[in-house]
Amino acid sequence: MFEDYFPKVIKQALEELSKIPTYGERTSSRFLYNFLKLPKEERDRLLESLIALNEQIKVCSECGLVSDMDPCRICQDPKRSKRFICVVEEPQDAYAIERIERYTGVYHVLGGRIAPLEGISPQDLNIDKLLERIEKNAVKEVIIATNPNLEGEATANYLIKLLKKRFSKLKVSRISHGLQFGSFVELADELSLEKSIEKRTSFP
Amino acid sequence: MFEDYFPKVIKQALEELSKIPTYGERTSSRFLYNFLKLPKEERDRLLESLIALNEQIKVCSECGLVSDMDPCRICQDPKRSKRFICVVEEPQDAYAIERIERYTGVYHVLGGRIAPLEGISPQDLNIDKLLERIEKNAVKEVIIATNPNLEGEATANYLIKLLKKRFSKLKVSRISHGLQFGSFVELADELSLEKSIEKRTSFP
Repeated sequence: MFEDYFPKVIKQALEELSKIPTYGERTSSRFLYNFLKLPKEERDRLLESLIALNEQIKVCSECGLVSDMDPCRICQDPKRSKRFICVVEEPQDAYAIERIERYTGVYHVLGGRIAPLEGISPQDLNIDKLLERIEKNAVKEVIIATNPNLEGEATANYLIKLLKKRFSKLKVSRISHGLQFGSFVELADELSLEKSIEKRTSFP
Repeated sequence: MFEDYFPKVIKQALEELSKIPTYGERTSSRFLYNFLKLPKEERDRLLESLIALNEQIKVCSECGLVSDMDPCRICQDPKRSKRFICVVEEPQDAYAIERIERYTGVYHVLGGRIAPLEGISPQDLNIDKLLERIEKNAVKEVIIATNPNLEGEATANYLIKLLKKRFSKLKVSRISHGLQFGSFVELADELSLEKSIEKRTSFP
């Protein structure tokens, strides 16, 4: 029987890995067998870093970023203006924008994008909290930095309409497309990302 | 500064992840941020399974398979004939063949394939040990099950020549191509894999 020969420790690890969102059989197997190619000391170090991450990670109750503090380091910093909110799909998008060290406002993580084919509608996104923050902090501008692809555009358009209707004086802008259509904010080179923020389009 | 805002636990985990073979910035980031989307209890369970794997995994000193025993469960089993050796690139290929529950010989893991462009030559593969096993166990047949792509074919051809020269009476065979050129043994459906072993070509 296959089960007699296939080690249970491998079987169990593959099962747990496949619970990670977007991880199928192939990606789980790729992680596991390549992990096992590392020398023992490097595997130990990797696991230690994941254990530390698992214990210390928090989700910011203000903006939804993953961080080691709640509120996160950005929301806590008095130098960051709460009157500018940059809306992103995922935490890694915010950290990609942070890397260019130009933006001085705060973020708001939607936790995804509108994708009817996958059954993801506006109610599944962190939008109510965004409206609450805009009101509470007398926000001047919301910069929408969802990904430059079909779902990201649909999500941006939905938010632009919603925000313009609710807050007539709010400036709502969208980062410009310096990026190739179909690509990801997280992967953009720093120059394109910087230009796309500088040249953002606003909706009067 | 970016470093003031980017949590060290994330930075460190990404650095360790990128040491995994074939893992770049993108794959490391995909693992990390999707891992963080799991509820805490599932993250705990996944880490426990990886810790168990890390502690219990061994590399079989006979065939090179990863297993929880050394010699591995297959090499230890008296029902498996040591006179038939199936040569694979990686451990996961052997386990894919195990899943069809038809092959009753043992395996030999090369630990890769010949790939001059990546600087991988025959000396980097676990070939000496294969020659030693063939001699020691009076092996009747070596079935070469490297992947059906350019590198896998080159590795198979290299081994066929080498083995036919060294062991004039040895039967050397290659699994037949029921599989699409460019695909992977690990991912083949069971029927194709079974047929490709049944209809293996031998080199008289």
